[in-house]
Amino acid sequence: MDSLRIVLVDTEGSINLGMILRLSANFGAKEIFLVSSRTYNEEEILKYAVRASYLYSSIVRVSSLDEALSECDVRICTTAKAREEDVLRNNVPSTKLPELVSKYRKVCLVFGRESTGLTREELSKCDFSSTIPTSEEYPALNLANSVAIYLYELLSRSRSEKLGIEAAGRSQIEGAVSAFSGISSHVLKDPHKRERAERAFRQIAFRAAPSEREIKIVAHVLRRALRRIESCQSK
Amino acid sequence: MDSLRIVLVDTEGSINLGMILRLSANFGAKEIFLVSSRTYNEEEILKYAVRASYLYSSIVRVSSLDEALSECDVRICTTAKAREEDVLRNNVPSTKLPELVSKYRKVCLVFGRESTGLTREELSKCDFSSTIPTSEEYPALNLANSVAIYLYELLSRSRSEKLGIEAAGRSQIEGAVSAFSGISSHVLKDPHKRERAERAFRQIAFRAAPSEREIKIVAHVLRRALRRIESCQSK
Repeated sequence: MDSLRIVLVDTEGSINLGMILRLSANFGAKEIFLVSSRTYNEEEILKYAVRASYLYSSIVRVSSLDEALSECDVRICTTAKAREEDVLRNNVPSTKLPELVSKYRKVCLVFGRESTGLTREELSKCDFSSTIPTSEEYPALNLANSVAIYLYELLSRSRSEKLGIEAAGRSQIEGAVSAFSGISSHVLKDPHKRERAERAFRQIAFRAAPSEREIKIVAHVLRRALRRIESCQSK
Repeated sequence: MDSLRIVLVDTEGSINLGMILRLSANFGAKEIFLVSSRTYNEEEILKYAVRASYLYSSIVRVSSLDEALSECDVRICTTAKAREEDVLRNNVPSTKLPELVSKYRKVCLVFGRESTGLTREELSKCDFSSTIPTSEEYPALNLANSVAIYLYELLSRSRSEKLGIEAAGRSQIEGAVSAFSGISSHVLKDPHKRERAERAFRQIAFRAAPSEREIKIVAHVLRRALRRIESCQSK
């Protein structure tokens, strides 16, 4: 995916519009098309856009969904609930969307009215529909929250797999394991128990994927404890 | 994960509170704790909760974060941006959270104020922090949108990805932390270093989500080592 266009159809709430501007800045979405002839409360939009209020002027207002969908390589209509007919119409859950859209250049994601969603005619202009999996009980998400989840899924989640702190190198973690193991050999008599203890510590340490800093500190304490026990024994 | 508790610290906006009620119904979150002495606009809350307004009376209002964190097996503080210090403090991106929390029974997810987030003191009460990966440009998400993304990630997205062995209970992990901490107090003179050492060990232990068996064995060795050092010192 080279670019994502958010297409808002007849959005009713100014607060939602403001929040969507903010979300665009949060996740780096560049295009918002608004198919609407409504008048909005500009003050409210800017208030809820907070530091993304500069994006207000970049909203492209058009008078038809066809216009908003021009240049789209793939058109996805979001729906609050995958009804049986939608399933037949090829509904892709939000979780599966990144894989699918990754193959397209320009992706257009269409969001309907807060009250009634998209009409059948509007839905028919999309290549497929997509739904966020929710509880059965109350599947209708607030519009801005729905946009938040789609932007997260499409623009952030799939790109962030590399995020997080890098783990310490193997030898550093082994250093802590070996100090722990040294301590075990002093406080446990049974060699089987020692072995099990080393394994438990090793599993915890490696599974935690500790940062260099974290494991260094822990290894330092364990090494000192080991030396203390040794020097005590030799007295 | 058996249950998720949303802990809201000093939430400022009634619209956000209403949206969070709706989100709880959307994703089936059962517990909301609110640490606040503010007065809210009830009408606004109920308006934005829409069909989840019945949940309003189930919000548990408490006067301290400690109260809100009672019974939590793992405590996660959400932050708008992983600053360098947070990274040191063990920041887990939202995308990696499901795997981690799946091993704990009761998971508490803490959200700070809209304006200023969580204080350092509040952050220090969590086992680690978590951040939603966003653009560098404008990382601060609206509170309700942030809750939306976390509930989606934890309660919806990952439902099918159940993992591994169940983690030990909080008290068992704390037992190992406390033995390690006892050792530190003998082998490290500087109280700041002791504190850092305890934190590093705690982070590693909780992040590893150890099984009961694993943490018991490690705690046993650490406790014996501690006793050995103590008895040696008293000679």
